[in-house]
Amino acid sequence: MVEEKDFALLTDLYELTMCASYFDNKINDIATFDLFIRQLPENRNYFIAAGLEDALNYLKRIRFTDEHIEYLKSKKIFKNDFLNYLNNFKFTGNVFALPEGTVFFPNEPIISITAPIIEAQLVETFLLNAINLQTTIATKASRVVLAAKQKPVVDFSLRRTQGTDAGMKVARASYIAGCIGTSNVLAGMKYEIPIYGTMAHSFVMAFEKEEKSFHAYSKTFPRTSTFLVDTYDTLKGMEKAAIVAKQLEKQGHKLKAIRLDSGDLVLLSRAARKILDKNGLSYVDIFASGNLDEYETEELLKKGALIDAFGVGTAMGVSKDAPYCDVVYKLVELSNHGKLLPTMKLSKGKVTYPGIKQVYRIIDKNGNCIKDILALRDEKVSGNILLIKVMENGKITYKMPSLEEIRETTKENLSKLPEKYKKIKNATNYKVEISDELRKLTSKLNKSLQQKV
Amino acid sequence: MVEEKDFALLTDLYELTMCASYFDNKINDIATFDLFIRQLPENRNYFIAAGLEDALNYLKRIRFTDEHIEYLKSKKIFKNDFLNYLNNFKFTGNVFALPEGTVFFPNEPIISITAPIIEAQLVETFLLNAINLQTTIATKASRVVLAAKQKPVVDFSLRRTQGTDAGMKVARASYIAGCIGTSNVLAGMKYEIPIYGTMAHSFVMAFEKEEKSFHAYSKTFPRTSTFLVDTYDTLKGMEKAAIVAKQLEKQGHKLKAIRLDSGDLVLLSRAARKILDKNGLSYVDIFASGNLDEYETEELLKKGALIDAFGVGTAMGVSKDAPYCDVVYKLVELSNHGKLLPTMKLSKGKVTYPGIKQVYRIIDKNGNCIKDILALRDEKVSGNILLIKVMENGKITYKMPSLEEIRETTKENLSKLPEKYKKIKNATNYKVEISDELRKLTSKLNKSLQQKV
Repeated sequence: MVEEKDFALLTDLYELTMCASYFDNKINDIATFDLFIRQLPENRNYFIAAGLEDALNYLKRIRFTDEHIEYLKSKKIFKNDFLNYLNNFKFTGNVFALPEGTVFFPNEPIISITAPIIEAQLVETFLLNAINLQTTIATKASRVVLAAKQKPVVDFSLRRTQGTDAGMKVARASYIAGCIGTSNVLAGMKYEIPIYGTMAHSFVMAFEKEEKSFHAYSKTFPRTSTFLVDTYDTLKGMEKAAIVAKQLEKQGHKLKAIRLDSGDLVLLSRAARKILDKNGLSYVDIFASGNLDEYETEELLKKGALIDAFGVGTAMGVSKDAPYCDVVYKLVELSNHGKLLPTMKLSKGKVTYPGIKQVYRIIDKNGNCIKDILALRDEKVSGNILLIKVMENGKITYKMPSLEEIRETTKENLSKLPEKYKKIKNATNYKVEISDELRKLTSKLNKSLQQKV
Repeated sequence: MVEEKDFALLTDLYELTMCASYFDNKINDIATFDLFIRQLPENRNYFIAAGLEDALNYLKRIRFTDEHIEYLKSKKIFKNDFLNYLNNFKFTGNVFALPEGTVFFPNEPIISITAPIIEAQLVETFLLNAINLQTTIATKASRVVLAAKQKPVVDFSLRRTQGTDAGMKVARASYIAGCIGTSNVLAGMKYEIPIYGTMAHSFVMAFEKEEKSFHAYSKTFPRTSTFLVDTYDTLKGMEKAAIVAKQLEKQGHKLKAIRLDSGDLVLLSRAARKILDKNGLSYVDIFASGNLDEYETEELLKKGALIDAFGVGTAMGVSKDAPYCDVVYKLVELSNHGKLLPTMKLSKGKVTYPGIKQVYRIIDKNGNCIKDILALRDEKVSGNILLIKVMENGKITYKMPSLEEIRETTKENLSKLPEKYKKIKNATNYKVEISDELRKLTSKLNKSLQQKV
């Protein structure tokens, strides 16, 4: 557990040592850093931006407490004048960003920060951490939601998310991406996300007979029961659920669903549908869970599984096949002693586009995305502008959208992205064009750096 | 960010609905649940237990606040008498557990909880979350440390851990596993872990010439500088680092290290060693980072890389190739109306060993682990007992070890595990034997359940 008052120290030590050296050498020119993702993980074809709200609250509130300063002093790394500077530290920069829920692609800035270099450098680690987690999960969850083809998906991952913060952020990011809710009760309270829950195998096992557990549960929740039917013998479990459902009917109540959590979900869901329908229980839904992800979900529906809703846990909650994005924070421009100096790195395989940028999205007359253009911010390019100003002089200038609004943004963004780009596997690559001016600047700078080295 | 006061709601809704139904049906028999891992992830051959301290503090402190009760009331799911019960909820059970740092294997209980079933059920989600993250990371990090063959490994993962809590717990768990420290400053403060940090490429780029950045940094940190040499041309960067190091020598200071963060680390580290030695700088270490994990680290050393220390980030911090453990929490015994009833589930591929258990480790006369025996707790088996009592009637009865002590436990446990079980790939499977009594109980129960269904 990390308290917000400690966020300033939730950073890599090198941010502080670099800043100490800038301070010591009286360097505090205005710098621009871009936070972006270098490349798509395997099987990913787009990203969903998420995490900006946390990032902006951090920038607005970051302070070093007396306890922090005392700790840093005790490490005997820093000089007193720098520690005094930290004691009064505030972030005073300007920030452009992609609104949460925006579909985006590699090399497009998610956040672009312009500030005195000490301030801009100091905030790197936290911003990367916040954007990485939520963007990774929103992207993964949107794939699960797409694979489920309009059928509801619920986040069941809390027990195996990487820690408590992830448990909360996974619920938030997967809701942004289109899940209908979460099993995480605290996320329900904090984010006003709908919460879902039924019963575990242990509940069924706690009764001498399986049907007794169904009776007991539906006595407590006569209108909202879902029976888990695979504890012992799934087919027999379904029959028992049907019997209890008929008894519920006599009391004027309807069983909501049965849940399948193991076995061949295609066969079992079809068998369950038959048993339920035969008993006049066509209103009872079939809810499936157990090691699901977008690949499995797509397969199940393709093979004719009769599933009405999905509970998706671990694989989504840790983004199992791509548990992080290759997200980086790179210096792209520096006003060095009044001279504007776009910067880039030459390290092998890690080249960065220099300069302050904007992203333009080209939409055709039917409202479909055609391509993006990554350009310099002061360049004239036609297209929809994606990066908007969210902070000026350290103050948030952006009306933070509600979670529902962000969810709507995702939905709208994805609806404009043609199907071929949204396939779970082997999707077509979306084109991100580099503008003429950005291309020229990159090549010019590359040459001048080659000479300088 | 999750505050400790909210941990009670950091749970799956179904824990609460099941407990509400137990309460409603006046069921509160004494139950025992085992928390264990079903199987080894690919390429893993053992686990390192971690997360117990968080688990015990949670059990000791769990309380529902008025805000929680108000929220639950607003959802109109629960009856008032159950909400009143929650308002006064305390965990009063007994707990056995593996001390943190213990090497263990699938099916061995990490935590075994005996309590009234409502209490034991309610705490499931949080316990799984706490043990899963830290055990996953301690296990991964111990592999990286083994691959580094006595050379120091530093945790560099904060920027890409899955959230803020993971950032802290990864620093803790990787330190337990043998890393020498972390880049995470807050983890340094909270856990008293040594902190490490140097400079980023942006620092080098902020100066007109590469060597100026080295001068500036070593002016601030004359005794502790590490120069990052791969921003533009790595070989030339090394030469410049050597020149600045010689100038530092004249001032009576020694450069600590150079850092390589990209490219062919075998070739570059050998070239760097040559350049440094040629300049009489054999005392300067070579520090490597950049997409490292245990596989890469082992390869580098095998191929003759001359690296003195490793900074390992994302792949370790998210346990990239196995970002979770298949950790579960299963009802294994229940005193139903006074009748002792060991329980197990029959769902396909998910069978659980019933009964209250103990784990015995068989050690040969040289101190090497031979095998483990999973047995019933009241069975007579010779061997070292692994599960110890840590909580009685809701009170911690265990002197929580310091982080240094836990780190020592890991070291000792791993030193007793023969090399063949510790290979990074294709290791020999360690034997976990099922005791006679446990085998009999399992088979007896299996038969009686088959008949019951």
